Amino acid sequence: MRILVAQLNPTIGAMVQNTGKIIQVLERARAQQIDIVLFSELVLCGYPPEDFLLHPSFIAAQEAYLERVIQASKGLFVVLGTVRRNPNKREKEIFNSAAIIQDGKLLGFHDKILLPTYDVFDERRYFEPGTTTQVWEFKGKKIAVLICEDMWQHSGQVKYTEYGQDPVESLKNKHLDLVLNLSASPYHFQKRDIRLKVCQAVCETLKCPLIMCCQVGGNDQLVFDGYSMVVDGQGRLRQLAKGFEEDDLVVDLNKSLEACSFPEESLSDLYRALVLGVRDYMHKLDLKKGCLGLSGGIDSALVACIAADALGKENVLAVSMPSLYSSEGSVSDAQQLARNLGIELLSIPIETTFNALLATLEPHFIGLSPDVTEENMQARIRGLILMALSNKWGHIVLSTGNKSEMGLGYCTIYGDMVGGLSVISDVTKQLVYSLSGWVNRRQEIIPQTIIDKPPSAELRPNQKDSDSLPDYAIVDRVVQDYVEEFLSAEEIAEKCHLNVDVVKDLIHRIHVAEYKRRQGAPCIRVSKRAFLAGRRFPIVQKWQ
Amino acid sequence: MRILVAQLNPTIGAMVQNTGKIIQVLERARAQQIDIVLFSELVLCGYPPEDFLLHPSFIAAQEAYLERVIQASKGLFVVLGTVRRNPNKREKEIFNSAAIIQDGKLLGFHDKILLPTYDVFDERRYFEPGTTTQVWEFKGKKIAVLICEDMWQHSGQVKYTEYGQDPVESLKNKHLDLVLNLSASPYHFQKRDIRLKVCQAVCETLKCPLIMCCQVGGNDQLVFDGYSMVVDGQGRLRQLAKGFEEDDLVVDLNKSLEACSFPEESLSDLYRALVLGVRDYMHKLDLKKGCLGLSGGIDSALVACIAADALGKENVLAVSMPSLYSSEGSVSDAQQLARNLGIELLSIPIETTFNALLATLEPHFIGLSPDVTEENMQARIRGLILMALSNKWGHIVLSTGNKSEMGLGYCTIYGDMVGGLSVISDVTKQLVYSLSGWVNRRQEIIPQTIIDKPPSAELRPNQKDSDSLPDYAIVDRVVQDYVEEFLSAEEIAEKCHLNVDVVKDLIHRIHVAEYKRRQGAPCIRVSKRAFLAGRRFPIVQKWQ
Repeated sequence: MRILVAQLNPTIGAMVQNTGKIIQVLERARAQQIDIVLFSELVLCGYPPEDFLLHPSFIAAQEAYLERVIQASKGLFVVLGTVRRNPNKREKEIFNSAAIIQDGKLLGFHDKILLPTYDVFDERRYFEPGTTTQVWEFKGKKIAVLICEDMWQHSGQVKYTEYGQDPVESLKNKHLDLVLNLSASPYHFQKRDIRLKVCQAVCETLKCPLIMCCQVGGNDQLVFDGYSMVVDGQGRLRQLAKGFEEDDLVVDLNKSLEACSFPEESLSDLYRALVLGVRDYMHKLDLKKGCLGLSGGIDSALVACIAADALGKENVLAVSMPSLYSSEGSVSDAQQLARNLGIELLSIPIETTFNALLATLEPHFIGLSPDVTEENMQARIRGLILMALSNKWGHIVLSTGNKSEMGLGYCTIYGDMVGGLSVISDVTKQLVYSLSGWVNRRQEIIPQTIIDKPPSAELRPNQKDSDSLPDYAIVDRVVQDYVEEFLSAEEIAEKCHLNVDVVKDLIHRIHVAEYKRRQGAPCIRVSKRAFLAGRRFPIVQKWQ
Repeated sequence: MRILVAQLNPTIGAMVQNTGKIIQVLERARAQQIDIVLFSELVLCGYPPEDFLLHPSFIAAQEAYLERVIQASKGLFVVLGTVRRNPNKREKEIFNSAAIIQDGKLLGFHDKILLPTYDVFDERRYFEPGTTTQVWEFKGKKIAVLICEDMWQHSGQVKYTEYGQDPVESLKNKHLDLVLNLSASPYHFQKRDIRLKVCQAVCETLKCPLIMCCQVGGNDQLVFDGYSMVVDGQGRLRQLAKGFEEDDLVVDLNKSLEACSFPEESLSDLYRALVLGVRDYMHKLDLKKGCLGLSGGIDSALVACIAADALGKENVLAVSMPSLYSSEGSVSDAQQLARNLGIELLSIPIETTFNALLATLEPHFIGLSPDVTEENMQARIRGLILMALSNKWGHIVLSTGNKSEMGLGYCTIYGDMVGGLSVISDVTKQLVYSLSGWVNRRQEIIPQTIIDKPPSAELRPNQKDSDSLPDYAIVDRVVQDYVEEFLSAEEIAEKCHLNVDVVKDLIHRIHVAEYKRRQGAPCIRVSKRAFLAGRRFPIVQKWQ
């Protein structure tokens, strides 16, 4: 039995284009004597469609496009993710379903049973949970269909949620020949290994192979890494689709294969996730060109590299916007980096505008000494210049702040935070260094002087990040343990041998900065818990 | 039997202060020979606590503070909203519960059964649904306890959700003497009448009186209007707590009362909601002073009135920031309004900074004609000036855009959109006019010339909103039908006798502007569906 795992990159709501891709896959499948074609979760509309699911016309369109897929399925057994209307009119009006299609006929649906409603997932907002699993027969094989989370409870890998049922258990003793899983499981750092464990647990229980078809591509803040996989009845990984790109993975159940494994490259995956996040954000909106402020610091240097890889060096405009406080080194480092990448660099000094603004405000600020106001003014003039270039030429501004800064609010709202997309705001400062080292693994792209200099915003004479912040190793530890693991200040202090007041102060700063982040550009989510995706905290609160 | 309905304004996570208020209520109750004290939903931590609910230390703190309330309940029967740990370790780790306390002892809990997971509500993200109702006996009376949504299914007033069960039905034939409902039901325009209908349906079915205790106050984007109510066994409204402020409503079940009714003042309620939203946003963060750009247009005029009422005229700073394109009338209108309100008005012209910026960019923009870039530059310089004042003096910037503009993206990101709070961004342009008329109902506060002049951004010579937008009556109709009612373009065109292409173009603009709104300041939600609260759409999409 030959199966084609169609790892596609759908765009949200692009029903025409998505259906076009699906039908092309079916044509390729027939040309290759394929029996079964497996697609990913909600492939017709793309995942996650969010509140489009509340529009009846959006649901009706999916039904119409599903009909086209059914018509195009001649000679094939097709399993495809789509929305289905709930005929029972229970809590929610639709199911997150897999349509089971055979040779031009719709056999039925599997409705997703376990609906993740945590972190970046809101499935209970839209979907009625399915209640049962079913066994489908095709060419003498017994096949079960599960959708993503349906198989996660079984492995105990779901955090903060313990579902009342386990669809995998319900398939025990059904003598299955094959399990098909349709997924849209977004990337985060080191998640693919967890996904493999989930598949292995299912195979070990059901004693049959499992094929998981994953979505690939960026949709807003989420990046889907692909890596569709085949695990055999003994729980061994046998085949793997490509990471971070579309792929047709052809599986022949009759052929025995060697066990395979993931390439051990978590930094490379992280980098590719960021590149794909930028590229799909732009290209799916038919945008080509990006611009960014290149300060000579490490954050903007890394973003320039990612942008050049995502958009092509000819589509990236870097802008150096020196002030009185910019060091000579920062300007020349930015130039060197731009040369190394082959991207255009403009220099637009902010001095004239800054002085004009100071003069305008001078009568009102008599007797008051310079403070953070004047620092923020510089950052905001830079933001204003980037936005002016964006308005005039159409470049989308790429914001360059990292997760550690965003966490503590060490950034200027409407200043360095401006942008259509915030490229590394889910990457901690320490990971920024690691990624920069990885970028330079073969040759020096990011000048070593950028990597070596102490971090500084350069908004006043001799300013250093370390004037205002503890060591980034401490900041990142607290951000991670508090934001990702929900530990208390006391637990973090004990675990990391830190002074509890230092930890409390950092947690306090995280909450105080909520108002800035609320207006931050969308991020590319690459960690277990991002500040700007899947995390919801009030601004007005007195807990921390 | 005497009941005190404690309509409180809790702050999210302010466990010390909230518990302090609760214990003071218990003391007042004892002094008034009260039998039962009823509090609102999640009153201990405030509603909605959002992801604080994922922090184990936050849950533990509530358990500790609940213990204090129990200790302080001597001589009383107390029903109080709090979080309860789920002992069964099912899907979610906590319940949204009512603690039933008698004379220093915890009798048990009612766990909320129907968990709203739509619009601004995410209860399935956090809570396990309760499964049963219970009848509590106190002084010979049979009492049922329900939490907010628990009683909404019964009246058919829940939209887009049809729960599989109806807790009110389960209480039929239980010969109840009283139903107590703990609510945190946020205000929207004309919602209190719906709430009354919900209560009436319950009373008519259960043939007994119902007392609903509502939360009051602003918490981030939500405003709770109070209006706790007593409905008798025939479904007649008998008592009503105050709207938009804390209140102790004392109910004597033995006394027969005349039927009463809501004052018919929906515009007054809307205005009070906005005032309370601003006041609580600021005061709960210990902030006193606000500032805003006063352009001479109607939107900023209305926001100035709201701010003066919310914060006190001495705490509001208006800033006129004229440019070459500002009309003489706009400047003098702003002055007249500031005089009428008694607020300070600064004039800070943007010309010098604008010219400096133009000069800086001039070498890069050679040969390109002025366009929206230069318009946005002016709006952004104004934003920059307001933020500079905010940084230097501590005023929070109040953003003044309305819902119609925000819907269509007729606003400048990082320009007129800057602010800690966006006061009227959930109020359509037409409602802005209605509210301004209401403000002037007794005397002219907003100069009539402001109300009469055609809307203009004044960013280029003789600019009018009508150059870029259809009539606001059309815009508002489409925003409402599409955003609040999920109608399709065709349905709206037919219903409102509009050209379908005009409707489609407006819907397209709504979606294209998603990227701006994503970075908008938090709004005060006053409509059935706000753009910035409870609405989740992707930026990257191809549906519209």
